[in-house]
Amino acid sequence: MVESIPLETATELIDAAEDRAEEIDNPMVITVANSEGNLIAQHRMDGAWLASVNISRNKAYTAAALETSTHELAEASEPGNSLYGLQTTDEGRIVIFGGGYPLERDGEIVGTIGVSGGAVSQDRDVAEAGVDRWQELSE
Amino acid sequence: MVESIPLETATELIDAAEDRAEEIDNPMVITVANSEGNLIAQHRMDGAWLASVNISRNKAYTAAALETSTHELAEASEPGNSLYGLQTTDEGRIVIFGGGYPLERDGEIVGTIGVSGGAVSQDRDVAEAGVDRWQELSE
Amino acid sequence: MVESIPLETATELIDAAEDRAEEIDNPMVITVANSEGNLIAQHRMDGAWLASVNISRNKAYTAAALETSTHELAEASEPGNSLYGLQTTDEGRIVIFGGGYPLERDGEIVGTIGVSGGAVSQDRDVAEAGVDRWQELSE
Amino acid sequence: MVESIPLETATELIDAAEDRAEEIDNPMVITVANSEGNLIAQHRMDGAWLASVNISRNKAYTAAALETSTHELAEASEPGNSLYGLQTTDEGRIVIFGGGYPLERDGEIVGTIGVSGGAVSQDRDVAEAGVDRWQELSE
Repeated sequence: MVESIPLETATELIDAAEDRAEEIDNPMVITVANSEGNLIAQHRMDGAWLASVNISRNKAYTAAALETSTHELAEASEPGNSLYGLQTTDEGRIVIFGGGYPLERDGEIVGTIGVSGGAVSQDRDVAEAGVDRWQELSE
Repeated sequence: MVESIPLETATELIDAAEDRAEEIDNPMVITVANSEGNLIAQHRMDGAWLASVNISRNKAYTAAALETSTHELAEASEPGNSLYGLQTTDEGRIVIFGGGYPLERDGEIVGTIGVSGGAVSQDRDVAEAGVDRWQELSE
Repeated sequence: MVESIPLETATELIDAAEDRAEEIDNPMVITVANSEGNLIAQHRMDGAWLASVNISRNKAYTAAALETSTHELAEASEPGNSLYGLQTTDEGRIVIFGGGYPLERDGEIVGTIGVSGGAVSQDRDVAEAGVDRWQELSE
Repeated sequence: MVESIPLETATELIDAAEDRAEEIDNPMVITVANSEGNLIAQHRMDGAWLASVNISRNKAYTAAALETSTHELAEASEPGNSLYGLQTTDEGRIVIFGGGYPLERDGEIVGTIGVSGGAVSQDRDVAEAGVDRWQELSE
């Protein structure tokens, strides 16, 4: 059994992220996945980039598969650093820039959110709106 | 030109399909895609099979890529018939059993819906609830 | 968090399956996976077929992804039947012949076992030795 | 001729690596492969990252496929150096950071070990425990 996030909660997180994406006027693709990185729900906002369909899904996958926020992976993966080459491992699913975040309950990762569609700072901003909503719901 | 369906409409179709899935007590994965077969929205209902994540997405893809309902492909793909072997073409994305349907406007395919999670008859039943909702919205 | 099977238990199941494989004098590849079909442990017995590395892994994946024993999928997937074409969906990971089994606890699938290396009847025999061991450990 | 390592030896190397992983309190995925890079045995320790399943397997593959320790590949693969781009060749299986090692007998590579799950320095530390065990067994 996978302890996961109910679909209803997943779509609430996506709604919160979509609201933020509308505020900053940048359509995004938003994915919520379970703790094994498999999809629970994914929405592509009208006008969001096609590439973001895979990128948001893979950000959610990466946050589960390496149990980290994806922006934490960038520096170590640069040429000359210890994980240089990380982004081409694991069948091309590892994303090493920001926008993927774990969702935790009692210190355990029970799901993840991945957002793609704008500058990385915008992706992170929108994903964090989903993470914030998760924390409100968890209180 | 790629015709598409707004995300808001896509989630309405998914809601209608989910309602039907609950009525028949069979959790499903439901995907709505655009006329190029690319994802607009996908929901995995709580308890739906993992394999259905890919299969529902690929049913939606197939309905767009071959401009047909997927159950129309089964017979022609059988040994001895004209399209025998179809299901292994196109990078493994072609699904030849039921549950994928085009969504039309004025005789043009503008999107598709794909459902997976039960017996094929159930997948079709649930997908058709989404198609019915599309037709209501189009009137 | 994935409620899964500890590695120690997984290797006990593999040991039981290996014992049976030795009894019938047929080297096998044996995989134990978690409830999302991801690997916990895999052993290739000396002399087992190379193809069985992927096949045993995919039998374990299939048992998780469709929540079934893989031999249950054969009939429905034959030409003319409802799931004809199933075996080429889901990125080629679906195996529709015997040797993959769910491992249950309190009615929930918490893992799977997949065996490949001989005739299907032998694969099933060896996998069932692993399932039997699971049931003994669960008592 | 494909040289290989008996399954029994492979699991001994994995045991030695697991012992070291427990000492440094970092769960790892450990793979032993034959001289063609194909799996003999793989264990995912409880709590090890999902991504490490593929990465450890591919470190073992790379050590066989290029007949080298994977950490030897990093520098040459950096921009401006002779093998820049190496990591995206060979269907995404090449890993260019540390944790994959050849296992030699009489100067011939007869197998490999790949470890993933922590910082690269930890992966190497744990993999080297497996290599050390190999050398003890070979004496």
